[in-house]
Amino acid sequence: MATVYRGVDGAGKASPLSIPDVLGPKQILLKITHASLCGTDVHFLTSGIALGHEGVGIVEKIGSEVTQFKVGDRAGAGYVRNGKMCGAMSEALMERKIIIRAHSVLTFPDIGNETFLHRIPDSLASEHAAPLQCAGATVYTAITSVAKPGDRVGILGIGGLGHLAIQFASKLGYETVVFSSSARKEEEARGFGASEFVVLGEAEKVSAPVDVLIVAGSKYPDWEKFMQKNILARTGTIVPLSAPAENFNLPSTPMFFNGYNLHSSLVAHRHVHDEMLAFAAAQGVKPAIETFAFSEEGFAEAYQKLKEGGMRYRGVLVR
Amino acid sequence: MATVYRGVDGAGKASPLSIPDVLGPKQILLKITHASLCGTDVHFLTSGIALGHEGVGIVEKIGSEVTQFKVGDRAGAGYVRNGKMCGAMSEALMERKIIIRAHSVLTFPDIGNETFLHRIPDSLASEHAAPLQCAGATVYTAITSVAKPGDRVGILGIGGLGHLAIQFASKLGYETVVFSSSARKEEEARGFGASEFVVLGEAEKVSAPVDVLIVAGSKYPDWEKFMQKNILARTGTIVPLSAPAENFNLPSTPMFFNGYNLHSSLVAHRHVHDEMLAFAAAQGVKPAIETFAFSEEGFAEAYQKLKEGGMRYRGVLVR
Repeated sequence: MATVYRGVDGAGKASPLSIPDVLGPKQILLKITHASLCGTDVHFLTSGIALGHEGVGIVEKIGSEVTQFKVGDRAGAGYVRNGKMCGAMSEALMERKIIIRAHSVLTFPDIGNETFLHRIPDSLASEHAAPLQCAGATVYTAITSVAKPGDRVGILGIGGLGHLAIQFASKLGYETVVFSSSARKEEEARGFGASEFVVLGEAEKVSAPVDVLIVAGSKYPDWEKFMQKNILARTGTIVPLSAPAENFNLPSTPMFFNGYNLHSSLVAHRHVHDEMLAFAAAQGVKPAIETFAFSEEGFAEAYQKLKEGGMRYRGVLVR
Repeated sequence: MATVYRGVDGAGKASPLSIPDVLGPKQILLKITHASLCGTDVHFLTSGIALGHEGVGIVEKIGSEVTQFKVGDRAGAGYVRNGKMCGAMSEALMERKIIIRAHSVLTFPDIGNETFLHRIPDSLASEHAAPLQCAGATVYTAITSVAKPGDRVGILGIGGLGHLAIQFASKLGYETVVFSSSARKEEEARGFGASEFVVLGEAEKVSAPVDVLIVAGSKYPDWEKFMQKNILARTGTIVPLSAPAENFNLPSTPMFFNGYNLHSSLVAHRHVHDEMLAFAAAQGVKPAIETFAFSEEGFAEAYQKLKEGGMRYRGVLVR
């Protein structure tokens, strides 16, 4: 008998997601052991869905034609599934009541050896690998698709995304400048690898302009403040990592005459995701996490903490 | 005795520009014969400066160390002079009274053979080469720095910039889609090389989404209208070619979830400028021009026509 889970389609609408008793030839059943919590999960709650796009687990069953994974392998999965961007969830919310599901079915696409599952390098603990599946992939893509050797990379905001962006940027060899509204976060920022820390209200005090500005918080900054040559270098690129409700309201004159660019970056291509995991394992990128029980209560507690902005910096539900 | 001309510095401020009787070793004196009129000139009028950043002429005198040009050569010059972006004008406005100057001094930088003057290919008439020095360089850079083979390139607006963008895009091998508020311009747009013509109010009727949108008019469009996957393809890039007074007011949700990018493009690097001139000569890119007398009266007439939006499509003052 097929178990019906709820997933979301590309448009963010809830849709049924059924798990058959017998897997299709290219399908994999993954038992999620570590699910971490992202702002996107909070967003999807209103669609009746939660958790699972940032999770790691153990392969429990494989279809007859699967060649890249075997039962017992450790694997993670990000936001990209089945050839299109989707939020098909391994965990589910039903009628807005949290029921954490233990399984996820992932389908191999018909394109050679490629897969939507990612093997977890041995040296990465599952609780650290989980937040890399979305947050890690997101910041790694944003940085590596825009920054050039020698660039100064600015990270705006130290949270679930920002604290990983700082680690990746500094370990990738960029001078990493952190802009934060809270002066109290300087020590932590430097601990993650920041070479410079600037309080947001005094952005003009930055020692030299940044070439790339990763907007890692959930709100846009006052753009006017950053549209200055001594803060964002000419031809610099802004990469926002979320879509707040308000519009981008960018001053056109400095955008144009300083040659600024806006680059949208959304999670990662699969080969970049694998590259990110290998880099994190080799260079010791380590999410700062808080663990919670893999239960409705654990989820409720983590969800509350995330919503209140108190998570330092990623909540992971551990089975 | 040095003649004092007026120029503008990088910040758009008027500043004196003197032409010595004896040229410096790397200087060139260019006698402008064709000066075309661009929106930038209108903009600079308020700084007490006009004309000359889009001009072509004859080398009249060279300094002792100049090796790349000789007296009598035909040359053009764009917006980039002396190693930084500036509006140092070969023609001048003094106290807002138009006095068209006949000369321009250009200095070679101390970097090998590079120069800020561009040789005009023999097959390009000077009156056609003039508008290429800024408008041509601007649209060519915007297209070639963003579009990839196979892309559909949208051009929004048919004017001084747009009519050249259509020609370059189609001759560069892109499917070229013109969006215009005026249905009457379809025949002309197709004459310039457009493969598709869409009335702006019915942008959703485009046969397939464009990958690049060059905003060639002097105003921003209603961004909401273009932020749709069936009009601007996912991961598509918008390239505005001017900076209207209003802010960019971009809807953040489609920008982020459709992965749209905003790329600022300002005139051209010098090697791209030369490449553009060679391409235009080889492929027969030909600005549509109206000629005016090289006099205060001619300028006044051309200026009026440009301001009223009646120029089809570039005014050139011919000596």
